[in-house]
Amino acid sequence: MSTFVVIGGDAAGMSAASKAKREDPDLDVVVFERGRWVSYGACGLPYYVKGEIQSLDDLVSVTPEQFREDRDIDLRTGHEVVDVDPDDRTVTARADGSEVVQEYDHLLVSTGSAPVIPPIDGIDRTGVFTLGSMSDGTDLREYVGRARNDGDLQQPDRGPACQFLETCSGPVGIVGGGYIGIEMAEALAANGFEVHLFQRGDRILTQFSAATSEAVLDHLHEQDVAVYLDAEVQELPGGERVEAVETSDGRVPVEMVLVGTGVRPRTELAEAAGIELGETGAIATDRFRETNVSDVYAAGDCAEAEHVVTGAATYVPLALTANRHGRAVGQTVAGDPTEGGGVAGTAAVKAFDMEAARTGLLGEQAERAGFDPMTETIDAKSRAGYYPEGGTVRVTLTVDRPSGRVVGGSLVSEYGEGAVHRSHAVVGAVTEGVTVDDLSNYDLAYAPPFNTMWDPVLTAAKVIEGNR
Amino acid sequence: MSTFVVIGGDAAGMSAASKAKREDPDLDVVVFERGRWVSYGACGLPYYVKGEIQSLDDLVSVTPEQFREDRDIDLRTGHEVVDVDPDDRTVTARADGSEVVQEYDHLLVSTGSAPVIPPIDGIDRTGVFTLGSMSDGTDLREYVGRARNDGDLQQPDRGPACQFLETCSGPVGIVGGGYIGIEMAEALAANGFEVHLFQRGDRILTQFSAATSEAVLDHLHEQDVAVYLDAEVQELPGGERVEAVETSDGRVPVEMVLVGTGVRPRTELAEAAGIELGETGAIATDRFRETNVSDVYAAGDCAEAEHVVTGAATYVPLALTANRHGRAVGQTVAGDPTEGGGVAGTAAVKAFDMEAARTGLLGEQAERAGFDPMTETIDAKSRAGYYPEGGTVRVTLTVDRPSGRVVGGSLVSEYGEGAVHRSHAVVGAVTEGVTVDDLSNYDLAYAPPFNTMWDPVLTAAKVIEGNR
Repeated sequence: MSTFVVIGGDAAGMSAASKAKREDPDLDVVVFERGRWVSYGACGLPYYVKGEIQSLDDLVSVTPEQFREDRDIDLRTGHEVVDVDPDDRTVTARADGSEVVQEYDHLLVSTGSAPVIPPIDGIDRTGVFTLGSMSDGTDLREYVGRARNDGDLQQPDRGPACQFLETCSGPVGIVGGGYIGIEMAEALAANGFEVHLFQRGDRILTQFSAATSEAVLDHLHEQDVAVYLDAEVQELPGGERVEAVETSDGRVPVEMVLVGTGVRPRTELAEAAGIELGETGAIATDRFRETNVSDVYAAGDCAEAEHVVTGAATYVPLALTANRHGRAVGQTVAGDPTEGGGVAGTAAVKAFDMEAARTGLLGEQAERAGFDPMTETIDAKSRAGYYPEGGTVRVTLTVDRPSGRVVGGSLVSEYGEGAVHRSHAVVGAVTEGVTVDDLSNYDLAYAPPFNTMWDPVLTAAKVIEGNR
Repeated sequence: MSTFVVIGGDAAGMSAASKAKREDPDLDVVVFERGRWVSYGACGLPYYVKGEIQSLDDLVSVTPEQFREDRDIDLRTGHEVVDVDPDDRTVTARADGSEVVQEYDHLLVSTGSAPVIPPIDGIDRTGVFTLGSMSDGTDLREYVGRARNDGDLQQPDRGPACQFLETCSGPVGIVGGGYIGIEMAEALAANGFEVHLFQRGDRILTQFSAATSEAVLDHLHEQDVAVYLDAEVQELPGGERVEAVETSDGRVPVEMVLVGTGVRPRTELAEAAGIELGETGAIATDRFRETNVSDVYAAGDCAEAEHVVTGAATYVPLALTANRHGRAVGQTVAGDPTEGGGVAGTAAVKAFDMEAARTGLLGEQAERAGFDPMTETIDAKSRAGYYPEGGTVRVTLTVDRPSGRVVGGSLVSEYGEGAVHRSHAVVGAVTEGVTVDDLSNYDLAYAPPFNTMWDPVLTAAKVIEGNR
């Protein structure tokens, strides 16, 4: 009998465990998770903090009990793996002060990512949060709940956020204008907080097109979020508790700070075991997610993946990839070698009443990858001009000028007007290496309640082909 | 100087005229349109009848004056072309009783389509409508307006619908369960009419998957539309005015009937000129939309087009294709030979509070085209399970079993939950010949407000690949 050991019980790990056991019921599948939560939807945390989701349990798609009883997976929560020995094919896990040694035939490292903690003076003060784990979500919800004095919200213990205040009331600071920063701006503003968002560069959502960033920035202003661009945070001053955000432009008093400056892969365990990292700093793998160490796989937020446009290793830690690659590893381990596909760097975000998506290589990213890119943006109506309601869809496409190949796209619209779902067309084009001329000829669905006769994606393709 | 003559001033014709003139300003461009409207959005007529669009003028994207003055196109409305002579390279048009003969170097036949009038006894009675033209729209709106006694609606003349009634009040009958029938059911029900819809076959929306049809049918029932399946209409009894719909199952009293049983290509003029039709009965063309007669093109609802899956000639008369192929002909005539792409048979419809889209070859259509198809349907959540609101997206995919190629798809959801825009992914896959395994690995945009981690399209692909 063969044993498959998984380190880390979130998207990649539990997908791998479930798939492997389903495909090969004779396989022993052991998962070590150091926390108590597994298979949780971290992407939902901002909406939990916002108050739209009532319980952390709602974020869990499958419970530990279900994994154990229904799927026959030996899931050991509260077990932190402290050593991997590829020569002996063992891992050592620590739980409640004692250690267990587990042999494996196949091993998946799915240790995930951790929030980047920038080296800012005062970042350790009370009232400074990140949003990477379920307990971060609990802390933030508690902060919001106390601040609102809302008895309906869970207030299990007197948490760190408000322990020096009778009530919290804002203003609050957010460091970082990426997904987390913007989703948390929505969550906090919806709870009545005055939100100040600090972004180091000259625009927010830097992974999206500049035109998308601009549209979302305008909307944040409409929503009374104070956005500070080119604002390098120098210090988070205060006593024990944070009291302000200080940049070169001055000091903004705040009662709480959320730091959302990206994530880094958790690779310490892998490195110690001699598993190689790639240039991105994440674990390097082949297309089957196998590392340089035979029978040791890595998938999810701790690992690289190949980009569908360039084929090059890239680090895009997002949930779908983790899930998909975990599943592929499970299938491989069960005897059916499966690649699971590359990544296009696709991402979506809701920002108050707007939505945006991006995919592929945009502008300078395409240039750095060796293309001769041209990037153009169009604004088009989201429904037929005569049809009631509707809004604007802004589409940016980046195309390789000589070949006409579509290499990237970025879309933004009012929430519900379809920027995100329409981006599906661009993901396909980017993945298949379609030219912008061919994309402009796609027979996309049309009816007045959904688009103009030419969907905004087609209009963008037509315009850029005309200018190429 | 070269002359480009266009017969018919709707989507294909005006797109061709505009593109040709823009690309080659020296070209003389003459358009003959027998009516007074050009470039109108016939797809918007149901919403005009419904009352969501206030004026027919709102459906017109570019007015005749703009074509003449801004685009320098010699647009002659009220001119019906009665003869095409390819040997002399002339067309003869009739206007106000006199005839003009116009020479051409290039000719586009874009004569559009006409509603199919089934040979039903009584179909000529007053109160029986079709919805193919702007004047049909006027008649129907007038009927609705009189029936509602709504002074805000236009009631220019005492029209045919209500001339024997003090007020119309329904019930009303709809013959045909395709797009027009369903859109008109919405339009009439929204105005308080009791709607009876008669469908010859055993399901509505026969071009969609059976699973889509079923979802829409359930919704029509919820909306109190009486739907009669397997209901061959035998007669529309009455006096001068229609009074009932009679099928083999009995007689349903109605005060008005809308016939929406499809369209046929208008080919009489082309046939008389020796232009060949294809097996579908529409005008045959090559990929540049050129007919068997040199320098004579055909595009839009009167012409065939090649299917992106099979390459075979097909007849799918829809607005986007007309527009795209017209534009391509304009470009070709201006000296830049342009194909304009095939058709995937993509279509979208809003049905009350639901939306649906279909593309490619589904089920038996795929079998008839020589594939060995398998068709499966999944229901998935439209947003993350824990995210507020949201609904169900039902996705049907048809896949060629041996190769795994995706050849068709059909999606349905609540209106606003993205069935139509998500279908963009399937259109791309169908067009590019992507396998269902590759589609399941697409890096589609994900965030909780837009989908589950696996978008419903990916889930469908994953499930069908697993069962293949």
